[in-house]
Amino acid sequence: MSADIVPLRPRTAEPSLAPLLALTASGMNAVNAIILDRMQSEIPLIPALAGHLIAGGGKRMRPMLTVAGAELCEYHGSRHHLLAASVEFIHTATLLHDDVVDGSDMRRGRDTANIVFGNPATVLVGDFLFTRAFELMVEDGSLKVLKILSKASSVIAEGEVDQLTAARRIETSEEHYLQIIGAKTAALFAAATRIAAVVAERPEADELALDAYGRNLGVAFQLVDDAIDYDSESLEMGKGKGDDFREGKMTLPVILAYARGNAEERQFWQDAIAGFRNSDDDLAEAVRLIAKYDTVSATRDRARHFAQRAIDAIAGFPAGPARSAMAEAAEFAVSRRF
Amino acid sequence: MSADIVPLRPRTAEPSLAPLLALTASGMNAVNAIILDRMQSEIPLIPALAGHLIAGGGKRMRPMLTVAGAELCEYHGSRHHLLAASVEFIHTATLLHDDVVDGSDMRRGRDTANIVFGNPATVLVGDFLFTRAFELMVEDGSLKVLKILSKASSVIAEGEVDQLTAARRIETSEEHYLQIIGAKTAALFAAATRIAAVVAERPEADELALDAYGRNLGVAFQLVDDAIDYDSESLEMGKGKGDDFREGKMTLPVILAYARGNAEERQFWQDAIAGFRNSDDDLAEAVRLIAKYDTVSATRDRARHFAQRAIDAIAGFPAGPARSAMAEAAEFAVSRRF
Repeated sequence: MSADIVPLRPRTAEPSLAPLLALTASGMNAVNAIILDRMQSEIPLIPALAGHLIAGGGKRMRPMLTVAGAELCEYHGSRHHLLAASVEFIHTATLLHDDVVDGSDMRRGRDTANIVFGNPATVLVGDFLFTRAFELMVEDGSLKVLKILSKASSVIAEGEVDQLTAARRIETSEEHYLQIIGAKTAALFAAATRIAAVVAERPEADELALDAYGRNLGVAFQLVDDAIDYDSESLEMGKGKGDDFREGKMTLPVILAYARGNAEERQFWQDAIAGFRNSDDDLAEAVRLIAKYDTVSATRDRARHFAQRAIDAIAGFPAGPARSAMAEAAEFAVSRRF
Repeated sequence: MSADIVPLRPRTAEPSLAPLLALTASGMNAVNAIILDRMQSEIPLIPALAGHLIAGGGKRMRPMLTVAGAELCEYHGSRHHLLAASVEFIHTATLLHDDVVDGSDMRRGRDTANIVFGNPATVLVGDFLFTRAFELMVEDGSLKVLKILSKASSVIAEGEVDQLTAARRIETSEEHYLQIIGAKTAALFAAATRIAAVVAERPEADELALDAYGRNLGVAFQLVDDAIDYDSESLEMGKGKGDDFREGKMTLPVILAYARGNAEERQFWQDAIAGFRNSDDDLAEAVRLIAKYDTVSATRDRARHFAQRAIDAIAGFPAGPARSAMAEAAEFAVSRRF
């Protein structure tokens, strides 16, 4: 691989996902058809519940990364469509279980499945999608892909448990937080992108480059997700919801506001994260302190670092629409407001 | 295979699991070591929660079937130990999720994990064990085994959803009930036994024979489990707990008592299964009606049929300690009181 450096350059227009969407449109049509076909079951509750979440939209970032990675590797087959659907099933299963675990009531602007169908059905249909994901991988038949995705799945589960353990613990450090999001979010981004190089039978260096792209992009995405939840502009738009605050999640905007705060402010955070202050007024105070120390911006700055690493990770691939679209997706990850 | 028929013969002593335990003792030591080793994680809550259930005992029937099947196939390697551990992890994951779904509070004589650690952690550690099961299969590297176990896992998940949908529906038929237990219980028994023939590289007819043994044994086990929950003798011993009654599960003792009952008794069942009659007195009435129509015995009779099919399925294997122990395990499945 050559050592081209593709810097985050100043733009007049905001970075957008549009090039990635255009690059992957035809592949994603195939992937979406597989998703719809393979979520079926003779037990009607399964497609009803799975479809509630899947039809609810979502960016489908992870399967899109598999498709984009295949474009970058100039792969012309169709094996990756099945695998991209498998990746989305893993993701969907974790969303269903997350919503049960967090007791969430809204996702993608709709009532969550646990609200509509109840926790028991949501847990079990999550399990079904997870097993179906493995069936798709086995159908493809690559042990290498199976190893990458089964490892990623177990890392995600560990990350979810780690996050649960860290909730309501004010002492959670930035390092620990990065470990958590590296596991619960970035591992699947990394695996989704990496398997494109595997099906394209590229050398291991290319696999590792795609893995690094996906991993760093995943960290950037999660950082910005966590920033949006406290961003006053997003809150006004009804995008940030203060869910993380009420659940006592230690995300980076809070970790930094706590670290930078004075004694009185630290006491506020201790009480809030412990769950003793969770009114609308308390959320407003949290947003005020986060604005005071500019930790939404600081979180976006951290995201920019990881996005740049993602872009540099694929600098060795030939310049072209795939590499450009993937680079702009990383810039979009940093700048997005939703 | 020859066509020996090994009938359920009258015995002076009660059939016992002891021969199966003796046959598999050394193999199960190896399996248990793998289970303990592979449930570890850097996230302390994972081994704590998983260990709570795993250390709580249980018969470990499913991995024992893999080990026994390997003996029957005269397999002298050790690949099946890892796979047997994987099977037990799948089973453990489903138990954790079952207890969350049913809101159970006791299993194996101890508080359930969801009571001790809460539903969120129990869901997520179940997910972890499930992913770890797949990692073990991938480590073994047989796509044939992966196909059998991933298919079984998805059938289990479908069966669990099917059971959830059927709960509190008095119209559930014996046929539908057999479908449910075939999926939620017997599929893993079948897969666990079948993979022994795969690692032993036996012809497909032997695989199918072991599959049939495991599947029929699993149906027999589940039928007797469901009978025990209404058996007045078991209830006196504190083994039957009436959980199925309170959860409105349509198990065979109820299906048959409803079918055989008069109009007044049918009304009772309709009300009870719908959830309007679930006091201790109502449970006593349910047990009385089940005794009146002898449907615990009828359920055991059904189990005897499936146990005999299990025994006949392996009649083509050479006579010896493995085949005898597996046959007696099937007789035990029918006669057991716990």
